[in-house]
Amino acid sequence: MRHCIATVSLGGSLQEKLYAIAAAGFQSVELFESDLTFYEGGLSDVRSLIDNLGLSIALFQPHFDFEAVSDENFRKSLERAERKFDVMGALGANLMLVSANSSPTAEADEGRAAEQLHILAERAKARGLRIGYEALAWGTHVRSWRDAFRLIQRADHPHLGLILDSFHTLAQREDPAGIADLPADKIFHVQLSDAPNLALDIASLGRHFRCLPGLGVLDVAGFVAATIAAGYRGPLSAEIFSDDLRSAPVRQTAVEARRALSFVEEKVASHVPVAQAEAAGLSLPAPPPKFGPVAFIELAVDDASGTALADWLETLAFSKVGHHRSKDVDLYAQGEILIALNRRYDSFAYAYRKLHGTSVCALGLKVEDRAAALDRATAYRYRIHQEQVEEGDYRMPAVRAPDGSLFHIVDDSFDALKEFRLEPRFTPKPAGAGLIGVDHVGRAASAAEFDSWVSFFTILFGLEPDASWDLVDPHGVVHSRALADRDRQIRFPLAYSESNRTLLAKALSRFGGSGVNQIAFSTRDIFSTIRELRQRGAKLLTVPQNYYDELAAISGLGPRQIGQMRDLHILYDVDTSGGAFLHAYSETFQDRFFLEIVQRSGGYDQYGAANAPVRMAAQARRGPV
Amino acid sequence: MRHCIATVSLGGSLQEKLYAIAAAGFQSVELFESDLTFYEGGLSDVRSLIDNLGLSIALFQPHFDFEAVSDENFRKSLERAERKFDVMGALGANLMLVSANSSPTAEADEGRAAEQLHILAERAKARGLRIGYEALAWGTHVRSWRDAFRLIQRADHPHLGLILDSFHTLAQREDPAGIADLPADKIFHVQLSDAPNLALDIASLGRHFRCLPGLGVLDVAGFVAATIAAGYRGPLSAEIFSDDLRSAPVRQTAVEARRALSFVEEKVASHVPVAQAEAAGLSLPAPPPKFGPVAFIELAVDDASGTALADWLETLAFSKVGHHRSKDVDLYAQGEILIALNRRYDSFAYAYRKLHGTSVCALGLKVEDRAAALDRATAYRYRIHQEQVEEGDYRMPAVRAPDGSLFHIVDDSFDALKEFRLEPRFTPKPAGAGLIGVDHVGRAASAAEFDSWVSFFTILFGLEPDASWDLVDPHGVVHSRALADRDRQIRFPLAYSESNRTLLAKALSRFGGSGVNQIAFSTRDIFSTIRELRQRGAKLLTVPQNYYDELAAISGLGPRQIGQMRDLHILYDVDTSGGAFLHAYSETFQDRFFLEIVQRSGGYDQYGAANAPVRMAAQARRGPV
Repeated sequence: MRHCIATVSLGGSLQEKLYAIAAAGFQSVELFESDLTFYEGGLSDVRSLIDNLGLSIALFQPHFDFEAVSDENFRKSLERAERKFDVMGALGANLMLVSANSSPTAEADEGRAAEQLHILAERAKARGLRIGYEALAWGTHVRSWRDAFRLIQRADHPHLGLILDSFHTLAQREDPAGIADLPADKIFHVQLSDAPNLALDIASLGRHFRCLPGLGVLDVAGFVAATIAAGYRGPLSAEIFSDDLRSAPVRQTAVEARRALSFVEEKVASHVPVAQAEAAGLSLPAPPPKFGPVAFIELAVDDASGTALADWLETLAFSKVGHHRSKDVDLYAQGEILIALNRRYDSFAYAYRKLHGTSVCALGLKVEDRAAALDRATAYRYRIHQEQVEEGDYRMPAVRAPDGSLFHIVDDSFDALKEFRLEPRFTPKPAGAGLIGVDHVGRAASAAEFDSWVSFFTILFGLEPDASWDLVDPHGVVHSRALADRDRQIRFPLAYSESNRTLLAKALSRFGGSGVNQIAFSTRDIFSTIRELRQRGAKLLTVPQNYYDELAAISGLGPRQIGQMRDLHILYDVDTSGGAFLHAYSETFQDRFFLEIVQRSGGYDQYGAANAPVRMAAQARRGPV
Repeated sequence: MRHCIATVSLGGSLQEKLYAIAAAGFQSVELFESDLTFYEGGLSDVRSLIDNLGLSIALFQPHFDFEAVSDENFRKSLERAERKFDVMGALGANLMLVSANSSPTAEADEGRAAEQLHILAERAKARGLRIGYEALAWGTHVRSWRDAFRLIQRADHPHLGLILDSFHTLAQREDPAGIADLPADKIFHVQLSDAPNLALDIASLGRHFRCLPGLGVLDVAGFVAATIAAGYRGPLSAEIFSDDLRSAPVRQTAVEARRALSFVEEKVASHVPVAQAEAAGLSLPAPPPKFGPVAFIELAVDDASGTALADWLETLAFSKVGHHRSKDVDLYAQGEILIALNRRYDSFAYAYRKLHGTSVCALGLKVEDRAAALDRATAYRYRIHQEQVEEGDYRMPAVRAPDGSLFHIVDDSFDALKEFRLEPRFTPKPAGAGLIGVDHVGRAASAAEFDSWVSFFTILFGLEPDASWDLVDPHGVVHSRALADRDRQIRFPLAYSESNRTLLAKALSRFGGSGVNQIAFSTRDIFSTIRELRQRGAKLLTVPQNYYDELAAISGLGPRQIGQMRDLHILYDVDTSGGAFLHAYSETFQDRFFLEIVQRSGGYDQYGAANAPVRMAAQARRGPV
């Protein structure tokens, strides 16, 4: 289907917006009048800019309460509409959006409203233009598409039709199914947006806090499916009133909006009959991959941090696998875990370290069908990175993530050990202290980048987001959300903070952007693992004694078990299904990331969020070095 | 009255919080259990810290759903309570807060709840402790202080009493008047907070968005008056659940909280009978001043920016008054407006410029009673600054504002011209281009500092805040609120932005903090003033033609008037009472501030917020230099 976006969804000047919209591959725009009011050039300048970018204007949207008004106000409104028609003529726009009157003075007289819309449509016809009428969830009398359509039928004019908006329907919990029965030629345009689960009044939600389709809680795909079933074949348009999006970098937002529309299309295509999907031109990319466990974690290091990190890994009972055959890369292993330390100068890792300091620059993810995964990435406009390889090396293409780091996509044919000159006494999957695999890789993101990460994981990888958590840092709230594949092979918690005084915000600012701040390894016996690590001198985070006093009072655990946990500084959480989580943290490595040792039991499917404040308080006590 | 604050109102470690609380002059704290859980030291460390700071613990607040539970859960809760009593014993805390059960499993059986509270009170008595029971607006069954008090009466135990909280009462629009009839010995503690006018569910509002008393819309003073009338003589406690406050610098927040409690006290003292006010020990500082117009505006400049600014002022038709007798300060005048350019090296202005660049470093405000104004500032813990003066100079003490700039307080005996060697042909109050006085001085603040500014103007100066406005910058929303004295002699709009991409946010970041970004002068004939300024070559902001097309369509102004406005780039606004506002902007001086020329008529009492987006778009087009 064709994709459109409303200029009001983006921040920046009109020119910046239009460039970004064209670059993201949209075919058309909804132009808001206020964008013209702020634009220094004339209407002909706007028109040629839009033409030159290969865009068209799907819709022109002035702001006025048109219908259901007194005769005197109607005369003024008509006069004003004629001026807007002049503007549309100069711009080459054919469809004007009239949204339902939301003024308290709007009259409840449907006959009057219909007649006034009829007259407007007749005026539009004289200019070769059309009027699209839209219900508003906060309209005074016309709140549902059913109300709007009733008026349109009553007005009965070929130049008057309906504009449908997913927000106004779904945010007031209206079933969109009835849309499928509408006559196709009366649906002039379809606007899409989503909304978070905020307990706000609907007008505030709708004016400030909408979000990209797929990032909220509304069934936008179901809504689109109903319009397709009705026979709608026009563009899908992202019209998203969001203070956050308007504050975000315009080019990134435009690309994310385009991805979101494509993702809606994909969901619809898998819901409606094939014939209908084809008739509507719904595109269906390769499905999301089926994942194995994390194949490796790659850190970009320099000589000093590489040495420090190697020492650190040894206290954590990792064994050195060997040195790469052609690159300056060392590999460490324990259980299924592989960690590569990359010091190579002419590499992606080097560039990443220059920007972000010593940090995780790449992850390796194992998938069933590598080609399909890369096809999907390309279809969704993610950039594919192919690191230079020497003859005989495994070719390992990667997807660039929102922070610029890499997610390498590998399959069963990948064997990391083959690429390395093994240490003399190395044996695969060394037992070490009992760390068996990567449980999760957590990331700190800026508020502006957070949604891009959620999209990256949901759209590209098909991961499922869990509920959001608010964690109390001593200097503000940290918002967290985790994504995982259905089989729980890979888990990626994300966190951001609106305060700029949390440790997370400070780390972001010091390291120039988001990045991995947490790597959790799983064990089957956390007590023996932690004992072993302590003996080896691993630097683990200490937990205040008061935590265990409180735990004794609330958990129902026996004094012996609590005593053990107290001695080893192990934290405890349970979920509502009775699963349990034992975990312990390392100290933070150069303020960039920390490790976590976790043991899940009884189907525990969370991340110990209840204990995160204890960790953050302990980290804050140590302070940034 | 004594003042208390809950540790949960502040951000930081427990130690940081307690230091800040003591420094701000509080007598006691409410200690939250989570603060202990995160604290690395033992309970005896906490106790000696609190003792050494001269504080006491008014209240200990664990987190649990105690009453109205099954027998089995009650046994567990009692056991847990005994552990909390141990903690209180170690800390020397005497009062434990139990808030109404908010779990969905809480039983609706008041008899059971009362009996369980009675048993708890009996256990507390055995330890020499007391239990304060508090209704929660989101409690399962006990939502009002009336519900809580009914249970307390039924439980009938001398060690069980009521804790009152302004938020839980006022945010659900309950009339606090009935509190006056409560028995004084049953009110164990009073917690105060306010809330903004947010259309949020009450639990989200209460957990994340409360604010300092006086900064929201609740009648906190009326609430306190009722408790005083009942005979309550305990501390007033700031218990404010606010994500913003927890993210703000802890020392500043503690001081602001203390000020807010004192301000509540002042309002109560002027409401209740004098005998009652004295019995309750309510303090009553000197009343807020009665203001004259802004006496002068002082800018800190260096040689280069001073010369540029002098040229700028001349294009704006200001006349040079002369050079200061003892300081390197030039004075410019037009109508009643006086602008001082201060280049002096050993001065406050110099230090301010070093921190913030060329900018407004001080304002002079004329008041009726200078001594009273300064007394009030001292009573509210604002810092008084006395600039060094030479023999014979007017002594001009100032109050330090939240950004460190100065508000000089002068009275009728002040005559700026006396301090200057006048230019040969200078005549007082030169007509210039018709600028007659200072209409308003606007300030950009960081989000964290915004409330401190509102407090500064309302508490110290008694100004009245108007409604908040949201202004659309091309890169995000700017929140704005203006404060003015009752006679409209002085007006101070404030603005902040949560986005870090708005021009305002960028300017803040470049100039190291908040500051004056807008100085508006009034004229009686904006058309002749602007014509004159344009002839003199003043750099005024251009307004897009599309603005006037839209104005023609909606304003009802005639084509001739619109033509004049279009030619002179004058903007237009009306308010609901029919007042009108004509205004024009200068270009921005070194990205720091701009001037505005305004003409009010018909009692217009706003600031042209509707046109702010046009200004911000024009400024964004020019971009930061």
